[in-house]
Amino acid sequence: MKREFIGDVLGSTDMDREVTVAGWVKTRRDSKGGFSFIELNDGSCFANLQVIADNTLANYAGDVQKLFPGAAVRVTGKLVASQGGGQSVEVQAAEVHVFGHCEPDDYPLQKKRISFERLREIAHLRPRTNTFGAITRLRNALSVATHGFFQARGFYYLHTPIITTSDCEGAGEMFAVTTLDQDNLPKVDGKTDYSKDFFGKKAGLTVSGQLEAETYACALGNVYTFGPTFRAENSNTRRHLAEFWMVEPEMAFADLADDAELARDYLQHLFRYVLDNCGGDMDFFNKRIDTTLLERLESLVDSPYEIISYTDAVDILVKSGETFDYPVEWGTDLQSEHERYLTEQAFKTPVIVRDYPREIKAFYMRLNDDERTVAAMDVLLPQVGEIIGGSQREDRADVLRRRIAESHLEPDDYGWYCDLRRFGSVPHAGFGLGFERMVQFCSGMHNIRDVIPFPRTPGSIAF
Amino acid sequence: MKREFIGDVLGSTDMDREVTVAGWVKTRRDSKGGFSFIELNDGSCFANLQVIADNTLANYAGDVQKLFPGAAVRVTGKLVASQGGGQSVEVQAAEVHVFGHCEPDDYPLQKKRISFERLREIAHLRPRTNTFGAITRLRNALSVATHGFFQARGFYYLHTPIITTSDCEGAGEMFAVTTLDQDNLPKVDGKTDYSKDFFGKKAGLTVSGQLEAETYACALGNVYTFGPTFRAENSNTRRHLAEFWMVEPEMAFADLADDAELARDYLQHLFRYVLDNCGGDMDFFNKRIDTTLLERLESLVDSPYEIISYTDAVDILVKSGETFDYPVEWGTDLQSEHERYLTEQAFKTPVIVRDYPREIKAFYMRLNDDERTVAAMDVLLPQVGEIIGGSQREDRADVLRRRIAESHLEPDDYGWYCDLRRFGSVPHAGFGLGFERMVQFCSGMHNIRDVIPFPRTPGSIAF
Repeated sequence: MKREFIGDVLGSTDMDREVTVAGWVKTRRDSKGGFSFIELNDGSCFANLQVIADNTLANYAGDVQKLFPGAAVRVTGKLVASQGGGQSVEVQAAEVHVFGHCEPDDYPLQKKRISFERLREIAHLRPRTNTFGAITRLRNALSVATHGFFQARGFYYLHTPIITTSDCEGAGEMFAVTTLDQDNLPKVDGKTDYSKDFFGKKAGLTVSGQLEAETYACALGNVYTFGPTFRAENSNTRRHLAEFWMVEPEMAFADLADDAELARDYLQHLFRYVLDNCGGDMDFFNKRIDTTLLERLESLVDSPYEIISYTDAVDILVKSGETFDYPVEWGTDLQSEHERYLTEQAFKTPVIVRDYPREIKAFYMRLNDDERTVAAMDVLLPQVGEIIGGSQREDRADVLRRRIAESHLEPDDYGWYCDLRRFGSVPHAGFGLGFERMVQFCSGMHNIRDVIPFPRTPGSIAF
Repeated sequence: MKREFIGDVLGSTDMDREVTVAGWVKTRRDSKGGFSFIELNDGSCFANLQVIADNTLANYAGDVQKLFPGAAVRVTGKLVASQGGGQSVEVQAAEVHVFGHCEPDDYPLQKKRISFERLREIAHLRPRTNTFGAITRLRNALSVATHGFFQARGFYYLHTPIITTSDCEGAGEMFAVTTLDQDNLPKVDGKTDYSKDFFGKKAGLTVSGQLEAETYACALGNVYTFGPTFRAENSNTRRHLAEFWMVEPEMAFADLADDAELARDYLQHLFRYVLDNCGGDMDFFNKRIDTTLLERLESLVDSPYEIISYTDAVDILVKSGETFDYPVEWGTDLQSEHERYLTEQAFKTPVIVRDYPREIKAFYMRLNDDERTVAAMDVLLPQVGEIIGGSQREDRADVLRRRIAESHLEPDDYGWYCDLRRFGSVPHAGFGLGFERMVQFCSGMHNIRDVIPFPRTPGSIAF
């Protein structure tokens, strides 16, 4: 069935033509003049289209006057310049076809104000609200901007495995994946016999596609992943999900400076893209969710990035005179409060902190010549602190082997990873961005559970 | 470090300028004239760049003459018109910097011909081969084409959950996801106590994002998923993976005819896109993998799609006089041999079979007025048979409830799904395409394990 998107109709200047639209009723208001105003939304944009339905319509009493929020209709009528103030065009309905009515008594979205907590319980209906419609479009826009950015720079989109035996960080808490009968596990020497499992060994859900992405970067140059990753951490915070999407570019023939440049360009591209392409939705977020949002994003489109060493960062924090909840000294990881001080107070611009102590970073990061630090970087933004973490990877086979041993990892598990350094090793670097954190940052949404369609958190897996 | 992509250099007409490229040595050949030819590939395209390294280079004996396939180098030199026949331009090296040598004795890719089976065992190195480089670029191109197609038509990219409790088909064999200690499972009444598990209940890996995608289509119009899905089936065939990527569009205000049109347009778009954008790689596939590939894809770019009912299809098959391995009669599912007969022999063009018997299709497909068939469709292509399966969804709350009961599903599990029909129901339709099957189809690759970076199959989960 042919229909025009409301987003296109609202931008149309071709008046007095017949249009057909379809969507869901946001509100209906009956005028004493013998007609009804219907605000119609079809998801194509934030704004509604106003429809004038006259009582001369055959189904005016039978259908139109029974329309409530949530009802699905198709309207054919004449597009005219609007008489009222709120919109430029409206449709004078010649036909209103109702696909499905929506009884107000049972409909959970009837109530004017519903808390985000309550909406999480009806995650199958919340995309019908203004907020979650806007989030869906923003999330889509950030996805498109991500692919557009990397494709334009010659990166290949890579699908790294979801089920894996490799634990990227050597530390992440992984979900197990199994087909063994949980009520009747096969045992050998009192232990579960994974040789009987689907893959013949213990398997889990990936915490990162980085190591596998490196195999492709070390063959084809530039690649990026954009896929789901998992953490089986019992973290019930507004910033943690058990299932979330990550963007992980990996570049061959690149060092940490190239990595920092790529991260800056990517972030600036995302901010510019959503400001240019999500007008109505961004205005809504700025009005209802975070009134400093647009100002912040606009300032970040071309603000310079300060690059400092971890050592200098600690120095600044120690000398700041600030009282932090967590003390700072060389060798400890920076906390969010420290990161925010650096970007919000010390530099008042995004900050990239590089060269962290080796002890607090992963084994695969390239050891610097000082032997105390590694070529790691964190990108810090105001309001949130770290948004991106990355590194140049250790490309020297002997150093890598030493680091694996020092990290008490099983060398046999990383034979294939070391092979990339044995055979035509190249300097390479990459980073990871938690996609939901970026949607949060661009929308101002407080809780990360409200920027992914069906959030998975400890004890919560509805739908 | 700045470098140009070899793909750009090869297309350059600006001669006698200095260029810097970096990549991996494919071959080195020493001339008696006191110089070496190096074929360099950086993954940016199928073709190699020829580099002339003269013995006047300071590291000619120390480095250049020790270059073997797989070595990683950076070359700076002058771009000149090539004297030889095989290429239009070449680089006269002023500097050859070696990042990493590659010792021929240990390198598994030294041997001229390595079987695809052997390459699967070294999946971390196989992207360095011609075939897997081409597959990576084709896979990337098909991903870009997929996003481009749906975005241009106003579909939003949607991330449906990976870990889920819902089993879309009511039949798929699911992987379990758990954090319970497998050597010490909590029990209640002799059964595993999932209330102690991460999500507080039994959870698994999704077999399809369709049901969740419907919730967004029924709120915002048009959406599509493009994400990993899973089958814990013990299928060791050249067409099955335990982990694969699916593309699942879902449209509101759409019926089966709209669905068929979308499927046709999508397929034609994909074929056109790879023919227009993957020239060097497609030529390689056509030469080395399947010599009928290009001809087939070119014919499919604008071939008409025959749409017939299942009932008519069975009629054609019964009357065909062909001997099939599986007998055909009304009520049985079509096998690959039947599908291929229809598209290759009977119609000699893609075929969409619609209106299948309700007994052999899923509960959510819209019941036709005859009450015997449902509004399902399969899209059949020559060589493979079914490439897409889709349906109009049951949008009548009472009929859906009846179908759930008839299918012996637990109504409580589908309360949220039925809600979409209770509140402003709309006709809607969608389909699913197995992404790896499409990569197979566009490359001619025989085994599906060779079109995904790290295949997961029964007993196989390396890397």
